[in-house]
Amino acid sequence: MKTLGEFELIERYFKRPARRAALGVGDDCALLAPAPGMQLAVSCDMLVEGRHFLSTVDPVLLGHKALAVNLSDLAACGAKPLAFTLALALPRAEAKWLEPFARGLLALADEHGCELIGGDTTQGPLNICITVFGELPTGQALLRSGATAGDDLYVSGNVGDARLALEVFRGTVSVPGALFELARARMEQPTPRVALGLALRGLATAAIDISDGLLGDLGHILKQSGVGASVDTEAVVSRVAARAASAAVEPLAGMTVAPAQWLAWALAGGDDYELLFTAPRAQRAAVLAASKASQTPVTRIGRIEAEPGLRLLDGQGQSVPNRYTSFDHFG
Amino acid sequence: MKTLGEFELIERYFKRPARRAALGVGDDCALLAPAPGMQLAVSCDMLVEGRHFLSTVDPVLLGHKALAVNLSDLAACGAKPLAFTLALALPRAEAKWLEPFARGLLALADEHGCELIGGDTTQGPLNICITVFGELPTGQALLRSGATAGDDLYVSGNVGDARLALEVFRGTVSVPGALFELARARMEQPTPRVALGLALRGLATAAIDISDGLLGDLGHILKQSGVGASVDTEAVVSRVAARAASAAVEPLAGMTVAPAQWLAWALAGGDDYELLFTAPRAQRAAVLAASKASQTPVTRIGRIEAEPGLRLLDGQGQSVPNRYTSFDHFG
Repeated sequence: MKTLGEFELIERYFKRPARRAALGVGDDCALLAPAPGMQLAVSCDMLVEGRHFLSTVDPVLLGHKALAVNLSDLAACGAKPLAFTLALALPRAEAKWLEPFARGLLALADEHGCELIGGDTTQGPLNICITVFGELPTGQALLRSGATAGDDLYVSGNVGDARLALEVFRGTVSVPGALFELARARMEQPTPRVALGLALRGLATAAIDISDGLLGDLGHILKQSGVGASVDTEAVVSRVAARAASAAVEPLAGMTVAPAQWLAWALAGGDDYELLFTAPRAQRAAVLAASKASQTPVTRIGRIEAEPGLRLLDGQGQSVPNRYTSFDHFG
Repeated sequence: MKTLGEFELIERYFKRPARRAALGVGDDCALLAPAPGMQLAVSCDMLVEGRHFLSTVDPVLLGHKALAVNLSDLAACGAKPLAFTLALALPRAEAKWLEPFARGLLALADEHGCELIGGDTTQGPLNICITVFGELPTGQALLRSGATAGDDLYVSGNVGDARLALEVFRGTVSVPGALFELARARMEQPTPRVALGLALRGLATAAIDISDGLLGDLGHILKQSGVGASVDTEAVVSRVAARAASAAVEPLAGMTVAPAQWLAWALAGGDDYELLFTAPRAQRAAVLAASKASQTPVTRIGRIEAEPGLRLLDGQGQSVPNRYTSFDHFG
């Protein structure tokens, strides 16, 4: 297998004409000029083999996911994707890996009009580091600090899918094939909720993307907003049944997964890349409209309260003990 | 040794109040707002253990170098440092490594008013990925593509020092201790030529920073400018004697380094982080003034010519064969 040089590698797989950037790949720096009145939202995620993905993952899917997790941070800010840089450490520069990786990466980039403007490639243990730039009008960013007592708490899509797929891979549970395929696609090829994030500008009071587990990431909103919350665990797991139904299988049929386990994964599973956000009670219709406009399902799962701390409730409003810990990358 | 959690690690070592950024560390994205009429220069470098630094390097120096190599790219664009993101993969989150690393990193950041605005930390083989942002007036970036036949060719500081230090570490050569300490400091703690880059705005016609070797990086200017060049090898090595003198040692005394070897390291050694730039002949006095104002030595080492290709000359203007190959991160 031929090994490529650094410049040949960039030229062949990653270089494209600059579009929105004033200057793209191929100089010491790229140049970006946000439009007047706009701010630049910047986020950065690093993916490490064995920690964030398995060595056996299809490079097409890995290229997709590496950018998706970064676009998810832009979504949580309500920013429109603009450009990104890619730093890549690779054991070997091989076309059979680079070509599909670049294909998956650039397909998602094109879908969001997000331009690759620079980066770095080097030899080393496989490591993918992307820094992404988005644009938004000054003062309109969705922050973690804006939740107010009385706000509703919402989550997009399904939570816990990625963890389900991981546990099937680990062999700790089994589920019907169609459900596994859905969960696996969600783990390997998550959909960044960019359209929903844009639709929530001026509507959501606080937002975060769920990468380390719903409760853990909710904790960031509560801490930075100086509020507490109660979460309806029934509402959280309600989507599990909907998901099983959409996979055309009987809910819980043929599975070795206990309902309590579903709940644990949904509340603390990690790797979901859904948006968790708050909005005033008076805006319920507007949130529903944003969900429809962005073609992104949204579930109301709780309420922000003045009393600090997090309270879990069952379907009858009774307290449920919180035994869930969030994902820590050094845990 | 206590292992820190991800959030505790960020909070303790890297979080500071936002200054120039509209929003700093601690949300899904950081927010940057370049001033009206300004462009953002963006660059990204990844450092891998064993490839870019030895596992035994002092973390203070590593923190410095990780940011320095990125600031060097801003310098080569003539951009003023503004902010950076840091993604860090670490085998273990240990205070004894993190504290000095953050200290070296943030000391250089403070020196340049360059604010840490976000990033990512994860467990994995040691890998440091920094993306840096600088600001410059629209249209004033120093590009690789502006060199014109007749321009002078200059290099800042000394080239070849980092390679000398590396070879001493490898045991292939020996030099007097004082000279080794100078070379080692240049390898482990390079000075990004930010002040010179700013002083060269509107003066240099093309610029690049030398990370992969003088001739290799000159090749990028020649290719992107559609020109050729001749390089006076005598002028390049002239700084070696000056450096040895500044170390208070007799040039070449007590060394096992042949002059041809010095030249090879200077032309193709890599890891120098000096600026290589071109300027019109009529601007020689202005280049000298820029060098003085930025307190950065500059040496005129050649000339841009219409004839494509690179010609090496000795002190008498006679042709010297080019046997030098540049550094390739997959070589």
